[in-house]
Amino acid sequence: MILILTPNIEPENDSYKQLMAHLARLQDIQLRVHREHGTEQTLTEIYLIGNTSSISADDMKGLPGVERVVRVSEEYRVLGRHRDDDRPSHFDYQGLRFGQGTLHVSAGLCAVDTMEHVEIMMRALRDNGQVCTRMGAYKPRTSPYSFQGHGKNCLPYVFDLAGKYGIKVIAMEVTHESHIDEIREALRRTGNPTGVMLQIGTRNTQNFELLKIVGRQQEFPVLLKRGFGITLSESLHAAEYLASEGNRKVVFGLRGVKTNMGDPHRNFLDFAHVPVVKRLTRMPVCIDPSHAVGSRSCGPERIPDLMHATAQGVIAGANMVLVDFHPVPDRALVDGPQALLLEELPHFLEDVRIAREAFEKRVALAERYASRDKTEAQTPVAIAVQNRER
Amino acid sequence: MILILTPNIEPENDSYKQLMAHLARLQDIQLRVHREHGTEQTLTEIYLIGNTSSISADDMKGLPGVERVVRVSEEYRVLGRHRDDDRPSHFDYQGLRFGQGTLHVSAGLCAVDTMEHVEIMMRALRDNGQVCTRMGAYKPRTSPYSFQGHGKNCLPYVFDLAGKYGIKVIAMEVTHESHIDEIREALRRTGNPTGVMLQIGTRNTQNFELLKIVGRQQEFPVLLKRGFGITLSESLHAAEYLASEGNRKVVFGLRGVKTNMGDPHRNFLDFAHVPVVKRLTRMPVCIDPSHAVGSRSCGPERIPDLMHATAQGVIAGANMVLVDFHPVPDRALVDGPQALLLEELPHFLEDVRIAREAFEKRVALAERYASRDKTEAQTPVAIAVQNRER
Amino acid sequence: MILILTPNIEPENDSYKQLMAHLARLQDIQLRVHREHGTEQTLTEIYLIGNTSSISADDMKGLPGVERVVRVSEEYRVLGRHRDDDRPSHFDYQGLRFGQGTLHVSAGLCAVDTMEHVEIMMRALRDNGQVCTRMGAYKPRTSPYSFQGHGKNCLPYVFDLAGKYGIKVIAMEVTHESHIDEIREALRRTGNPTGVMLQIGTRNTQNFELLKIVGRQQEFPVLLKRGFGITLSESLHAAEYLASEGNRKVVFGLRGVKTNMGDPHRNFLDFAHVPVVKRLTRMPVCIDPSHAVGSRSCGPERIPDLMHATAQGVIAGANMVLVDFHPVPDRALVDGPQALLLEELPHFLEDVRIAREAFEKRVALAERYASRDKTEAQTPVAIAVQNRER
Amino acid sequence: MILILTPNIEPENDSYKQLMAHLARLQDIQLRVHREHGTEQTLTEIYLIGNTSSISADDMKGLPGVERVVRVSEEYRVLGRHRDDDRPSHFDYQGLRFGQGTLHVSAGLCAVDTMEHVEIMMRALRDNGQVCTRMGAYKPRTSPYSFQGHGKNCLPYVFDLAGKYGIKVIAMEVTHESHIDEIREALRRTGNPTGVMLQIGTRNTQNFELLKIVGRQQEFPVLLKRGFGITLSESLHAAEYLASEGNRKVVFGLRGVKTNMGDPHRNFLDFAHVPVVKRLTRMPVCIDPSHAVGSRSCGPERIPDLMHATAQGVIAGANMVLVDFHPVPDRALVDGPQALLLEELPHFLEDVRIAREAFEKRVALAERYASRDKTEAQTPVAIAVQNRER
Repeated sequence: MILILTPNIEPENDSYKQLMAHLARLQDIQLRVHREHGTEQTLTEIYLIGNTSSISADDMKGLPGVERVVRVSEEYRVLGRHRDDDRPSHFDYQGLRFGQGTLHVSAGLCAVDTMEHVEIMMRALRDNGQVCTRMGAYKPRTSPYSFQGHGKNCLPYVFDLAGKYGIKVIAMEVTHESHIDEIREALRRTGNPTGVMLQIGTRNTQNFELLKIVGRQQEFPVLLKRGFGITLSESLHAAEYLASEGNRKVVFGLRGVKTNMGDPHRNFLDFAHVPVVKRLTRMPVCIDPSHAVGSRSCGPERIPDLMHATAQGVIAGANMVLVDFHPVPDRALVDGPQALLLEELPHFLEDVRIAREAFEKRVALAERYASRDKTEAQTPVAIAVQNRER
Repeated sequence: MILILTPNIEPENDSYKQLMAHLARLQDIQLRVHREHGTEQTLTEIYLIGNTSSISADDMKGLPGVERVVRVSEEYRVLGRHRDDDRPSHFDYQGLRFGQGTLHVSAGLCAVDTMEHVEIMMRALRDNGQVCTRMGAYKPRTSPYSFQGHGKNCLPYVFDLAGKYGIKVIAMEVTHESHIDEIREALRRTGNPTGVMLQIGTRNTQNFELLKIVGRQQEFPVLLKRGFGITLSESLHAAEYLASEGNRKVVFGLRGVKTNMGDPHRNFLDFAHVPVVKRLTRMPVCIDPSHAVGSRSCGPERIPDLMHATAQGVIAGANMVLVDFHPVPDRALVDGPQALLLEELPHFLEDVRIAREAFEKRVALAERYASRDKTEAQTPVAIAVQNRER
Repeated sequence: MILILTPNIEPENDSYKQLMAHLARLQDIQLRVHREHGTEQTLTEIYLIGNTSSISADDMKGLPGVERVVRVSEEYRVLGRHRDDDRPSHFDYQGLRFGQGTLHVSAGLCAVDTMEHVEIMMRALRDNGQVCTRMGAYKPRTSPYSFQGHGKNCLPYVFDLAGKYGIKVIAMEVTHESHIDEIREALRRTGNPTGVMLQIGTRNTQNFELLKIVGRQQEFPVLLKRGFGITLSESLHAAEYLASEGNRKVVFGLRGVKTNMGDPHRNFLDFAHVPVVKRLTRMPVCIDPSHAVGSRSCGPERIPDLMHATAQGVIAGANMVLVDFHPVPDRALVDGPQALLLEELPHFLEDVRIAREAFEKRVALAERYASRDKTEAQTPVAIAVQNRER
Repeated sequence: MILILTPNIEPENDSYKQLMAHLARLQDIQLRVHREHGTEQTLTEIYLIGNTSSISADDMKGLPGVERVVRVSEEYRVLGRHRDDDRPSHFDYQGLRFGQGTLHVSAGLCAVDTMEHVEIMMRALRDNGQVCTRMGAYKPRTSPYSFQGHGKNCLPYVFDLAGKYGIKVIAMEVTHESHIDEIREALRRTGNPTGVMLQIGTRNTQNFELLKIVGRQQEFPVLLKRGFGITLSESLHAAEYLASEGNRKVVFGLRGVKTNMGDPHRNFLDFAHVPVVKRLTRMPVCIDPSHAVGSRSCGPERIPDLMHATAQGVIAGANMVLVDFHPVPDRALVDGPQALLLEELPHFLEDVRIAREAFEKRVALAERYASRDKTEAQTPVAIAVQNRER
């Protein structure tokens, strides 16, 4: 059970003290307080943990300082959607909103190789009106004998160039807690010219120790990729490790599942799960068509499968697209075969736009039908119940 | 190697006789002749089977009666796309064109239960301008103790009602060769009021004996579903069983793959394979969102996953949508939970239309970019080569 | 609910008539009678189908002619194990017993190619004391352009040679109902020199029409292979199609599951399911190490994986081993790479013997511990309950 | 390419210096030196990394200090088996040998809950002649809200009790680098009464940063579990992360794969891969039947599936068995349903013994056949070549 307090309530307030005194008397119930400092107001939530079934929500609502009460289901306690749950499904970072209603494209280099390529990439992004990118400095590789990324050495020039070309957020994978410090330090030294969204890759989806540490900082938002060999539910539980430690600025990333049933694609594309993640949780959903498709193959309409996959994710409501580009894919050190060419960037962006417009039309259409014919089955209550469907 | 002869050439023609005499002298090469009688002309193709690598395509092109020569790759000999292969990717049936460039929706009953429900369904289709449907008479069920469909008993009223409401093509699963005769007989008795597309379900994708028999008749086109536990390539090979026996009016159906990695959907959706099937073969591609998703769950935008999945297939170029509706899903004898309500039909069709328009815009966009910048990588030749990519 | 009648009861008997008259009066209950003519006695079972929960087992037991009553669970009605179910888990054919307590090796040719190879194989079997074999005449192949087996043409010499070398049972795949007639006819013509166990391959596990037809004859026992892309439960349900039509002489075959998680083996070996099938049903369990492993690779102990896999199945209680041998694997037309050499046959058989002895010791050990310490958890009742575990 | 130097050679030796001087002149070749200090001698290996194809093995063999030369294939450079590779497939720890020829059972508590249960477990092990165990202090759990293990708090009493009951090696999972220090510190404080084998669980198989850190210490051997959602090859590559950092005391653990095709077992058992791992690498192979099976269900012979699975692993040559026991499974905090009862320990151990004896007989049998008939196909050379088979 979550008690959502009146905005800007402070621990020194009398109502707050009375509330806490009351709650402390509840038998076998532990409390966990979460405070979120936004630009306009500070929100406070109190989680009641333990057997809350005997506690009356109405009683709780009557307590001093309590604005709303949400009875959470067992699953995805913090990030999940629950009955009567109107908590936000977005967060703001670097002046950008990342939410279930927005869309950002993060095109960039899978792995940073040379400063020149980084600059070419950044310039192309600016020229095409983009303010997000992806840049891989730490690369987990199947074999220890493969190139593992330039690590912290490339950070200064990556951040400098991002600043130079107006890039506001870089999605960057981290595979060890020390990387966060390295990133923070490199940002500080370069004068914080840009922002970073920490990415947890598919091999570390259940690296819970890393998740806890990343979850304990609230400076950087996190992009958590789905584990490619576990169920969706297990991956969503992993996101709770971030949130239960305090960081709720979490984007959930779909990137395909490992099975030869997806051949000839590198992974089996799971973008049909876009609406599922949005129904079960309040996280914005990112799609990674590059790693999912794994090649530049085209259909007979001369459209790469990779663009088809992107359009499929976007028309179903995806909120972020992580996509590999490279000025010279043949010379890319990692995953060259799946990188699009820089000159394909305008085409890619226009293609995304068409799919996004179609999504927006679909939403408007659904609203029109819903308002016309308000049945039980289509109210938010009914949607939230889906949470328990399995 | 395929020799495509001049249209309307007849076995009595001299050039035909000379050609055959010449071919008969080729060492270790077997011939297979395929003749297709269209409404306007008769096409003849001669397949040279055996080690054709030493045969010159130019020599063959110089023979009497030969218009074109296609050197086929090993895979998907008849239905595949090969280098310089401009054979058609469509067929006509009942005045409708089924091709890689068209789109048809086949909404209907997963399983026929009562005549009343059939009529309600047919009327709704007509009222919404539809001329295709799906109607299940023969239902393969996991357990022998479950309802197995009304079989031939329901055919007369299904066909009569189809005729009454202007339905031109009914997709109908068959699980035994005798069903084809039963369908043919029931059509004859009711005065051929409609057409039937024979559907081979996912449990019979590799029931090669059934495929051969269905492939030997050319009266009915065939919708072959992907096997839900085999690779895409194996399923495409299965389609060749139909084609190699003579029936090339084949639509290939994607319906999801059986693995818990797709949970909470009933199957793991594979609609990212829409462009793959169109690249590797000349078959139109059908999607079956109902069996793939398996429920009526909605995302937060109040759009059922099932409509999202459909939009994903259509925006990537799907050519046919097989979808379950039912007037009273709770009383459906098979797969009620995944059936949409009849009153959702207009919404569903409008939603499809939005996705189709987006697809068409995407194709136009790709053409604009391709014509602007004609690189090797984007010519049809390069696309065909993808056939060998694995 | 099943009523097991006194042995040798006949429809003309008064007690039988009284019983049937009584049963006919039960509301909403359908009856299905199954009679099994054994060498010593005729067994009669009556299945009560419908809502039997309100029927008292004691009342039924008191009716004339009724010896025992078994209340079946929903799953695997005929072939399953149910509470208090001591129906047999074996059948006899050609003087051999196939049961959950016996073991037979069926070594032979995956596909019959030449009469010479058949004779060499049969002779080697006789020389090694074997009376079972496998011989493939009808071969379902992924591509229609691959060799499909010699079909009925090879049957006469296969059966003749079997008789000549004392082979009593040949496991032989059928893929179409007509093959049963062809086999019956060829046996008749050659004077019934041997017996045939009809094999349903993994591609036809859910070809229910074929299962029904094979199930309607009781002349030949059936070996049903697990579907390689469906769950174990779905495959066990398929076996019920055979049994519900009347044929209960069914062996269930494990042959691996299709997923790259099993690499470098051709399929993912599922022999851990041997005890599961024996717990859930009364079918003897066959293992097919050749198709599951798919190669002749050896471990460092110079034992082929294929023999390791066999030993794994046998030590857990497998009742039949289907294994490919070939005099000249390089010249085999189908699946040569997985065939063992004829000179490896004695080694293979001795290896199986070691594993079987170990299994028997393990059973004796378990019995010793069970009798020493009779807890609830180890009684047959508790075992049967497992049937419902999922 | 690996140069194996004469034992006990020291960097100060002239021959060593000459050798290094020579190697330093090789173009584009990097050197990596690995020294292993054993109880009797110190072994030195020099890895030549880069394009070694143009380097003659004979030339290298002629250099001072070089005893043998192994040309490694690309895969599994350090831990793999290569042509003419007779490097050892075992290591010693705490007076015990862990190798491809030995077998140890590590029965114990999945998760340490109370000191009392630890003592009961340890005493039972001693009473049954066991010197290894498993004890979980750090438990990665799907949900952050589940019990996560007692962590470092339980280490002192676990180690004390191990010493009291003569346990020499405890397999213990670590999920963060700090756990190694905690274990080292607790061992020091308790007077090093026992040894620890660090276990990397299936969720961290590709947590490369953790692997590198664990690989950098050589004090504790490592048990690396297969990733449950990745291929075998990817998991073997992960083991190379440990070895390439210096720790080659690595046991590889099979524990089943995550897919519903394994139902009703918790995971799909992969013990058929025991001989595969032994063929491809020099690592001893551990099996974990408890996590793979996930229940106490029995077959009709009253033998738990879990014992069947164990026997299957052992008869194919498994070298270690990790198995969960618990004095009161109903009160276990983690994975109670799969724990065997303490009173089943003697039965379990005898059952393992039967399977092991069968394995040894099988090996003797194979040797007899191999010596009788020495064909190319059965020499070690041929076996090593399998390494490249895919």
